[in-house]
Amino acid sequence: MKYAVKFHPLHKSGRIEEGKTLLEAARELGVALRSECGGKGICGKCQVVVEAGNKGLPPATKAERGILGDKLEAKYRLACRTPVSGPIQVLVPQESLAEEAVILTDGEGAPFNLEPAVEQYHLKLAAPSLSHPLADAERVLQSLERIYALKDVSIPGAVLSSLPARLRQAGWDVTVTIWQGRHRELIDVQPGYVAGTYGIAVDIGTTTLVVYLVNLVSGDVVATESMVNPQAAYGADVITRMAHAVKEAEGKEQLRQAVVSGLNQLIRQACARAGVEAKHVAEMTIVGNTVMHHLFLGLETRFLGRAPFTPVVHGPCDLKAGDLGLVINPLGNVHLLPNVAGFWGSDAVSDLIATNCYRDRQATLLIDIGTNGEVVLGSESLGLTACSVAAGPAFEGGHIQFGMNASRGAIEHLRVDSATYDVHYETIGGIPPKGICGSGILDAVAEMLRVGIVLPSGRMDTSIQCQRLRQGAEWPEFVLVWAENTALEEDIVLTQKDIREVQMGKAAFRVGAQILMQQKGVKQVEKVVLAGAFGSYLNPKSAVAIGMVPLDNPEKVISVGNAAGRGACLVLLSKSKRAEAANMAGRVNYLELTLQPDFNTAFVNEIAFPKKDS
Amino acid sequence: MKYAVKFHPLHKSGRIEEGKTLLEAARELGVALRSECGGKGICGKCQVVVEAGNKGLPPATKAERGILGDKLEAKYRLACRTPVSGPIQVLVPQESLAEEAVILTDGEGAPFNLEPAVEQYHLKLAAPSLSHPLADAERVLQSLERIYALKDVSIPGAVLSSLPARLRQAGWDVTVTIWQGRHRELIDVQPGYVAGTYGIAVDIGTTTLVVYLVNLVSGDVVATESMVNPQAAYGADVITRMAHAVKEAEGKEQLRQAVVSGLNQLIRQACARAGVEAKHVAEMTIVGNTVMHHLFLGLETRFLGRAPFTPVVHGPCDLKAGDLGLVINPLGNVHLLPNVAGFWGSDAVSDLIATNCYRDRQATLLIDIGTNGEVVLGSESLGLTACSVAAGPAFEGGHIQFGMNASRGAIEHLRVDSATYDVHYETIGGIPPKGICGSGILDAVAEMLRVGIVLPSGRMDTSIQCQRLRQGAEWPEFVLVWAENTALEEDIVLTQKDIREVQMGKAAFRVGAQILMQQKGVKQVEKVVLAGAFGSYLNPKSAVAIGMVPLDNPEKVISVGNAAGRGACLVLLSKSKRAEAANMAGRVNYLELTLQPDFNTAFVNEIAFPKKDS
Repeated sequence: MKYAVKFHPLHKSGRIEEGKTLLEAARELGVALRSECGGKGICGKCQVVVEAGNKGLPPATKAERGILGDKLEAKYRLACRTPVSGPIQVLVPQESLAEEAVILTDGEGAPFNLEPAVEQYHLKLAAPSLSHPLADAERVLQSLERIYALKDVSIPGAVLSSLPARLRQAGWDVTVTIWQGRHRELIDVQPGYVAGTYGIAVDIGTTTLVVYLVNLVSGDVVATESMVNPQAAYGADVITRMAHAVKEAEGKEQLRQAVVSGLNQLIRQACARAGVEAKHVAEMTIVGNTVMHHLFLGLETRFLGRAPFTPVVHGPCDLKAGDLGLVINPLGNVHLLPNVAGFWGSDAVSDLIATNCYRDRQATLLIDIGTNGEVVLGSESLGLTACSVAAGPAFEGGHIQFGMNASRGAIEHLRVDSATYDVHYETIGGIPPKGICGSGILDAVAEMLRVGIVLPSGRMDTSIQCQRLRQGAEWPEFVLVWAENTALEEDIVLTQKDIREVQMGKAAFRVGAQILMQQKGVKQVEKVVLAGAFGSYLNPKSAVAIGMVPLDNPEKVISVGNAAGRGACLVLLSKSKRAEAANMAGRVNYLELTLQPDFNTAFVNEIAFPKKDS
Repeated sequence: MKYAVKFHPLHKSGRIEEGKTLLEAARELGVALRSECGGKGICGKCQVVVEAGNKGLPPATKAERGILGDKLEAKYRLACRTPVSGPIQVLVPQESLAEEAVILTDGEGAPFNLEPAVEQYHLKLAAPSLSHPLADAERVLQSLERIYALKDVSIPGAVLSSLPARLRQAGWDVTVTIWQGRHRELIDVQPGYVAGTYGIAVDIGTTTLVVYLVNLVSGDVVATESMVNPQAAYGADVITRMAHAVKEAEGKEQLRQAVVSGLNQLIRQACARAGVEAKHVAEMTIVGNTVMHHLFLGLETRFLGRAPFTPVVHGPCDLKAGDLGLVINPLGNVHLLPNVAGFWGSDAVSDLIATNCYRDRQATLLIDIGTNGEVVLGSESLGLTACSVAAGPAFEGGHIQFGMNASRGAIEHLRVDSATYDVHYETIGGIPPKGICGSGILDAVAEMLRVGIVLPSGRMDTSIQCQRLRQGAEWPEFVLVWAENTALEEDIVLTQKDIREVQMGKAAFRVGAQILMQQKGVKQVEKVVLAGAFGSYLNPKSAVAIGMVPLDNPEKVISVGNAAGRGACLVLLSKSKRAEAANMAGRVNYLELTLQPDFNTAFVNEIAFPKKDS
């Protein structure tokens, strides 16, 4: 006699011979149920929830009662102990699926296995007795080994201190969190069965902090929070902040506390939004440029700020959240991705992890746009060669008269009519404009160049008769938005000086890319990836139009936004990605541009914009 | 042409062909010089000091200059780079000898390899430059890997914080300390070449704290300090202290701070005596009974103090000195040896490690004498079976009218003249007696039994005519020392009640031993080892005379004094011994005496002393 068996939410079903176990049924139907004990009712990994068809089943076996306890009432069963004895429909919880079955995709759509460094295990322990007076710690450890085959787990002193009370208050029914770093460490004990494990990924930008709360069982980002980096109070750029850290007695500590308290505020917000207790958040990953990395750890930046720009540490760091003053589980690991050089930080490493482009067959250029921009050229066969360029803050809205960061009211994209010179624009939030952010500035320059208001030399063509083009207080300027349409009481303009700032920036990126290409003998790249927290996606056409990238086909230019933050999430979800980041960072060949003899000449040559139709 | 080559202090010499290197010479003469690079001048392990014959040698090679630096002036050379070119005499520093050649002996004279968990490495680094802008941390790590083949070393945040300043202040010439725990960790950076590495071994007794400062390169104990355990202010015994820990809000923390501050005082004293800086002491090992272990770590003792006497943790613990408030290097590891049960602690495990007697071919009984005594029966084939006995404090001088701990002025040994009943005694320090300590009490009872003043039942024979034997205020008593010969103003006596206390204690040990023997079907043990911090060595004859041990041949009884402290030193010097302790503790089969049905009967049967000549 065969019965219909359905496995949810996997859409697997079929007819199975009576008497076969649900584990056998799962295997026949291609459901990758975990089963470390091979179906002996020992490991407790093949737990399923019987959604329909419960009545025909035999009562739970002793093995099931021992392992499942109260979960029996929630219709949990062990698939290996439960025979098919009628039509049945079961739900397969994610944690019962074999690891290779949980596959996520990265930013480029490439699949990867979910394998976080922290996992939770549910334990139902026997209370101690005179005949079994095993210590509390060993009681937990033996159970972890017996049920989950987890060996060599250490328990830190801070957990030992509260362990007796936590076990007894929970009636010996607990969920423990294990961090698998260099070795396994038990970092949390919670009462009863706890379903979710959470981690936090962080992008510490010079300008903006972004925090992602990630469900480590599903791989979902469940909350995202951001704020202006509170270190901005000590200087807008890394040079000013490093000077503060070095000159003031308390400077280093002030900067450290500023970023830590900012992160703590974002962590609390994200946790509150998702209904997660921050103290049970089990791990954090952090990316940022090398200066942000050092200031966050309270490390010396004195030698980072002057030649030969020596960091204290390049490699990945693992520290305890409690030692850093963070409000997640104090025993939670904080993993900082590796930096490559003083001005080539883990944010760019994270870009590479998120975009996967270092694995491309053909030569690819990745440009992380920021005040200190990072450029890397690579392919599977070329390896990775990188440089950093002092591009200035123009593409983040800095040093631009009406420049602003990418928040509500910023012009993020615009187009200039070639006949009327009218400007069509979009703002973030669709509200009247307050200024213009990086992606808008790039569009503005590209469009003004296209319609001829800006000449290839970069000079504004003041001979053009147009009301929007006029002489400002100091410089010629072009009116993007008339005052009556703005949220301000004045016209929003782009000045001749603003154009010059953009020229400097684009030349820096272009020369960085050229020198890398020369070094590796690459005449033509096949792809350019533009990353960066400029708020909105840069328009590849504009990037090509102003000659920022060494390509003339915009279809080969990809704009990926804040890839660094996505990379931080990926390494939180995957130990393999983490190892890959460490390995890859160690293989990046860093080129110090200031040591290149032809740098200045090349830079001057690249100041001009491309000639039209050339 | 051959020349005489001598290696000091190993008494190895011979004639070696001109042109062969000193490394080749060493091999020919059986000197186990280290050489991880195989004689290529890379690893720097084969350093020797040329004591005589320096003049004929060629100048140092580039490899030698790079590795040895200033040590060249102290006549250091690399053996693999130095040819025999005349008669020569070299000193081989201990650190240049292959590990298997550094052999120490344990308490029983058995050899073991010196292999501490911390070692120091001298590094001469190149300063960073624009062409080699490697980070400080990686500069150290790459050098460790290149010169000493040490991989996968992690550097904690606390070291990173001070690393840039330390490296630069030392001119890039430093000695780093590496702890090899579950993985390698760099825990200290000192300027220049540092010769010694030091560790601290600790025995936390209920009554006495003992601290040993140990040179981890030579294996020598360079200073020993002890004091009364400051926890005594909260109760003399473990039960009272546990009650304080549980009842008072601050009790647990008061007890923790008491022992930590006591240990810190002893560490400072020991370091001052040996001219060692406490902050550079790199590791600590600690033994003590389970209650002392828990109170030291600030762990909950509520469940240790009542049935089923469940400890928080049995296994070995590794914690950071800084987290525990100890004054050695805050990153120094503090290793606590494993406990076996609530009343069978790491002090007894340490006894076994120090005496090695669990490896005996024939059945051996080890008794650790204390208020809470530990008894273990074992042999290579029997395994280890253990129990704890509530023996009372009589053998430590407690509950005895003139009892005292083993300090100056305590009667430590005595003899009673069988004709005159005169008492001949020895005191610690040879000064007039103030009281009597454990070993003296044992002798006194044995001697009074021998001369007939005490009958086998334990009753004093008041029919004997003797001035020293008299009726005291409550009990009959025997005068050991007349007031005029004491440091007191009264006679020192042993009372009928004192005899009863000793009877209770010896019966407890004897019954513990008997039950273990019954369990394992052992009719006769071949050796009894008496350990304990009773101050002086117990007289085996006295132990046999009062029937404390299940043997009648005193030659089979060995008194080893404070073996626990020696075991703590051994595990500090040897990772293998440490692993052995963990492994062995896990294999001890612990028997809860109170669960034995015939315990009470056996105890009553053993209250009496052996009949004379029986």
